Amino acid sequence: MIQAGIVGGTGYTGVELLRLLALHKEVEVAVVTSRSDNGKKVSEIYPSLRGYIDIAFSLPDLEILAVCDVVFFATPNGTAMLMAESLLTKGIKVIDLSADFRLKDVAEWQEWYGMTHACPDLITEAVYGLPEVNREHIKKARLLACPGCYPTAVQLGFLPLIEQGGIAFDHLIADVKSGVSGAGRKAELATLMSETGESFKAYAVSGHRHLPEIIQGMRKVANQPVGLTFVPHLTPMIRGIHATLYARLTGDMIDIQALYEQRFADECFVDVLPGGTHPDTRNVRGSNNCQISIQRPQEGDTLVILSVIDNLVKGAAGQAVQNMNLMFGLDETMGLQVVALYP
Amino acid sequence: MIQAGIVGGTGYTGVELLRLLALHKEVEVAVVTSRSDNGKKVSEIYPSLRGYIDIAFSLPDLEILAVCDVVFFATPNGTAMLMAESLLTKGIKVIDLSADFRLKDVAEWQEWYGMTHACPDLITEAVYGLPEVNREHIKKARLLACPGCYPTAVQLGFLPLIEQGGIAFDHLIADVKSGVSGAGRKAELATLMSETGESFKAYAVSGHRHLPEIIQGMRKVANQPVGLTFVPHLTPMIRGIHATLYARLTGDMIDIQALYEQRFADECFVDVLPGGTHPDTRNVRGSNNCQISIQRPQEGDTLVILSVIDNLVKGAAGQAVQNMNLMFGLDETMGLQVVALYP
Amino acid sequence: MIQAGIVGGTGYTGVELLRLLALHKEVEVAVVTSRSDNGKKVSEIYPSLRGYIDIAFSLPDLEILAVCDVVFFATPNGTAMLMAESLLTKGIKVIDLSADFRLKDVAEWQEWYGMTHACPDLITEAVYGLPEVNREHIKKARLLACPGCYPTAVQLGFLPLIEQGGIAFDHLIADVKSGVSGAGRKAELATLMSETGESFKAYAVSGHRHLPEIIQGMRKVANQPVGLTFVPHLTPMIRGIHATLYARLTGDMIDIQALYEQRFADECFVDVLPGGTHPDTRNVRGSNNCQISIQRPQEGDTLVILSVIDNLVKGAAGQAVQNMNLMFGLDETMGLQVVALYP
Amino acid sequence: MIQAGIVGGTGYTGVELLRLLALHKEVEVAVVTSRSDNGKKVSEIYPSLRGYIDIAFSLPDLEILAVCDVVFFATPNGTAMLMAESLLTKGIKVIDLSADFRLKDVAEWQEWYGMTHACPDLITEAVYGLPEVNREHIKKARLLACPGCYPTAVQLGFLPLIEQGGIAFDHLIADVKSGVSGAGRKAELATLMSETGESFKAYAVSGHRHLPEIIQGMRKVANQPVGLTFVPHLTPMIRGIHATLYARLTGDMIDIQALYEQRFADECFVDVLPGGTHPDTRNVRGSNNCQISIQRPQEGDTLVILSVIDNLVKGAAGQAVQNMNLMFGLDETMGLQVVALYP
Repeated sequence: MIQAGIVGGTGYTGVELLRLLALHKEVEVAVVTSRSDNGKKVSEIYPSLRGYIDIAFSLPDLEILAVCDVVFFATPNGTAMLMAESLLTKGIKVIDLSADFRLKDVAEWQEWYGMTHACPDLITEAVYGLPEVNREHIKKARLLACPGCYPTAVQLGFLPLIEQGGIAFDHLIADVKSGVSGAGRKAELATLMSETGESFKAYAVSGHRHLPEIIQGMRKVANQPVGLTFVPHLTPMIRGIHATLYARLTGDMIDIQALYEQRFADECFVDVLPGGTHPDTRNVRGSNNCQISIQRPQEGDTLVILSVIDNLVKGAAGQAVQNMNLMFGLDETMGLQVVALYP
Repeated sequence: MIQAGIVGGTGYTGVELLRLLALHKEVEVAVVTSRSDNGKKVSEIYPSLRGYIDIAFSLPDLEILAVCDVVFFATPNGTAMLMAESLLTKGIKVIDLSADFRLKDVAEWQEWYGMTHACPDLITEAVYGLPEVNREHIKKARLLACPGCYPTAVQLGFLPLIEQGGIAFDHLIADVKSGVSGAGRKAELATLMSETGESFKAYAVSGHRHLPEIIQGMRKVANQPVGLTFVPHLTPMIRGIHATLYARLTGDMIDIQALYEQRFADECFVDVLPGGTHPDTRNVRGSNNCQISIQRPQEGDTLVILSVIDNLVKGAAGQAVQNMNLMFGLDETMGLQVVALYP
Repeated sequence: MIQAGIVGGTGYTGVELLRLLALHKEVEVAVVTSRSDNGKKVSEIYPSLRGYIDIAFSLPDLEILAVCDVVFFATPNGTAMLMAESLLTKGIKVIDLSADFRLKDVAEWQEWYGMTHACPDLITEAVYGLPEVNREHIKKARLLACPGCYPTAVQLGFLPLIEQGGIAFDHLIADVKSGVSGAGRKAELATLMSETGESFKAYAVSGHRHLPEIIQGMRKVANQPVGLTFVPHLTPMIRGIHATLYARLTGDMIDIQALYEQRFADECFVDVLPGGTHPDTRNVRGSNNCQISIQRPQEGDTLVILSVIDNLVKGAAGQAVQNMNLMFGLDETMGLQVVALYP
Repeated sequence: MIQAGIVGGTGYTGVELLRLLALHKEVEVAVVTSRSDNGKKVSEIYPSLRGYIDIAFSLPDLEILAVCDVVFFATPNGTAMLMAESLLTKGIKVIDLSADFRLKDVAEWQEWYGMTHACPDLITEAVYGLPEVNREHIKKARLLACPGCYPTAVQLGFLPLIEQGGIAFDHLIADVKSGVSGAGRKAELATLMSETGESFKAYAVSGHRHLPEIIQGMRKVANQPVGLTFVPHLTPMIRGIHATLYARLTGDMIDIQALYEQRFADECFVDVLPGGTHPDTRNVRGSNNCQISIQRPQEGDTLVILSVIDNLVKGAAGQAVQNMNLMFGLDETMGLQVVALYP
């Protein structure tokens, strides 16, 4: 059994990891840390886990984590970079769900995240954990950077098109809508139910931290510069991301539906819907799936791609487990065969 | 593998059965019927099931259902009673999620449900599927009547107290709140999002069909008449039932917390929370658990019991699978080890 | 024009006061205070008020407030009691929407609110602002204590019955459900959308601060001791309170519907619905109305009363304006003729 | 007093008209029709109107409507065109909230709406009721076509830019999100709370009926062909539309913020927010306002315009009342000075 540790187990990605790992046949959750709830039983804070997780929260100490084969960081940005090196030195694999190792350009990271990076040397080694692009590198990774939720939905949605070309790379648009759990479990006015319920808004239009991450990923695949307008929105629901992507076709008209179906034919967690359909975010609620539809309105040259994920699963904890499976040579779907909760 | 059929697979309890049975190791879903969607793939109507359920809807014909070992009725009231006898004759077990076989008194059933019962003879044989009360009978049942959602939450909440006595049996109160999925998947004004979102109301205060079912169950356990005021409410969420139960203590003060913990110690799906806590319905969202808390405000003689379930799982499809497991000699929890979806 | 000040203008009751007073023909909002947002325009924090309220937030200074004829306190508990005396001395009327002057028993107040009362002498003078009970005293009041939201819904619902008698006063039950805005505009985990959306729970069953307030009010009307079990719940919506009240009839059966209709016939904001109906909380969303229905299930001796208000209007800011109208000799309904927002 | 009639008073735009007209000082609601609820009191169906609207529903007969000075059609498409001519002949003004007179090209209308137009002759006379574009024509109109909800939000958002030029007219994008009340009050599966709550989806990407209406309006202002990709989405809330609009700047960089502020300086219901802000739909909930923000991310050539309205007010009933005020020479804001309901 793989011994797993979770640093920062009280946030939404932490508890989602616990939900998935509790039923994973090859994993035992050995350590869950929380400074604020140290000593309390995990199931006392999360009664949904009663009967599944019986341990108590520990302090995030290296000695306590030493029993682990893998440590997940479900922490705010800036924590994983302080502990990763020590864990790796002990032969413990590290899977970071925060943004510490996502950007390859240290200066860019420091600008967007407003802090000095504590271990820039590890950035080169870190593998970006989008299996649909990076599977072979992931299998050999010691340090894994899990993609952000927006970047997962947007990159998967654009992927076949970016690989194929024949579009205007300089004017891509990603109009993306997220449920409020994406903002994390923090005591803030902005995400109170009275503030976000029954209302819809855009935010961070001038620049969101996920923008450089998306562009980095798309540029690498495209092998050319990419111009993207990324507008995130908050929608009054808890889970789910819906990316509406726009690209202008410049080359010959090809069968885009076939392109997408072929590209993702062997992907266990990316599902291209039949032509003419629209995915609901609830189709993937609680599951690790990404569902994608492609439309070309009025047979014009503007392509509309709809891509949905559960931000806490394929956009965070589920993708982390998928990466762990790959890193440990397990079946990629182990522990992730969960049917979405409908309705 | 047990071959299972679902009659009425397009409603919420039908699709919930599919979610649970899709991952059940000893069951293969052989037939799903729907008059309106006959011929369409199940996953076309429910894209959440893509990759898990690959068959198409059939007509609800006896010949098609003949391949089954067990048939679930996830139909409106009045359908199961028309087909149950023929299926039983073929040696097929029947699990009815509707109300056709819940009430033992035919006249009472006909009054509350406004139709003539088609096979009153089978009512005696039918076993009421509340495992916490009726487990041994369920194991031997051919025809099983699954309890309603409200009756499950209310009966489990009152059970230890009713068995124990020492309360005023003539003035019990059940103030119960349900998510809107309890109203089923029907095109009706009353359950539109614009009608039920952001609003709360009581309904059917003068008399709800679940009242005689609850009283029948409680009277049997109490072995004396029971007077219950049952007020159902609609709360603006999709899944979940929260029963707030009131009973006046008349006997000596005993340790109610201990009474409940002891009564449910061996129950796999009933979980008594520590004293002083309050269960959220989300603690059990998507799971087959019932969580119960007991409080005695101001140390007075009025006891307040809080009982929560997911109306579609322990209140319907999950309980049906639990009953099926018992009827086929399987582990009672098989296919039901699902961690609740939080947040 | 009456010059009005609002101390604590950034909370939900503060902004609701602004919504109502902005259109009140006899009132000009002269001062709105906020320590944290001092100097910012009110409409910058609340863009819903653009074009209606053009002033900026001030500090809560006595000198600034000296221009006012009336000052509303929309503050946390413990603030109004520090400033009330100085304002009254200047001839300024004070309307407190917090709990500082609601309880007549200082010791009881100090126990429930966990602080020492700063001006116990004023408690006797303070008038409890439930116009349906206390109208004549309100007209002459200098210092007004606005009732809490739960106490308003519960007291109005029980009122005719309590006045009339013929019920078991020792075992009344108030099972009450509130939208989350009742918890105020504070950065807290418990009221995040991810924590309260799609879930329902009871809270503070062992004792809520509104309990002594309700009992004080009912005892005074009943002129005898009153035993009440009060269970508050949080329901996943923003505005609205639904009280489900239970009382056992002990006397002769009278026409309860007629009793209620007669009692409230002259009340402008209490509306008794026809027999057999159930009020939705949305019926009163944004309005100052209280709608009440009475039911007697199965013609038994347990009476069920359903009472709904908007917690921020009749439960707070609307009632405060209604009281202000009375205190200044205006038409009681001025500024409060608002049709509920449906859907 | 203007005598007003409402044909089709049971839908959401009908009841919203009633909410607004109930408090309009120059209007008396004389007739409200409903075939299904003929004879019932309006407030019986809509308890939110108790005390404000005391009449009963009538049949939609010309004789009954003859007492009116103006008749509003809050009906499904295809009804107003059957009655408009007869009403106009009697000297009664007609304000149609449905789509019957919105499109000037009869063939196009018939194609998108799938029926034969009953009175094509009136189409030319009908005035498109977007006051910010068409005010002078509206003042003289006998027959007014109220814009759709999406077209209002999109056209107002693009308006100054379209008038000004300097953008790529052939590749405009409108990514628009609507609350579910936009789908109307119809018994349909798709808008049940269990189907639309906690989920987000695009729909009708291949072509929505509001597309030709938007293009017709924008082309007229632009005085050149306009290419628009319009993607509507359903967001899990009741009221509100949020349009996220994308345009590529082709000319010299001008001060777009100033352009918008200047263009709408004299408009009573269009409010340009300060630079760098994002409007929430709740800022305008229940009010007739349109709030607009302009952003140019990363100082690039793609402009992002955010435009929010309440779909039932500025997108339907409020705009209808605004048009009525203009048609009858009243103050344009009469009856529409309503502060948005926050939270």
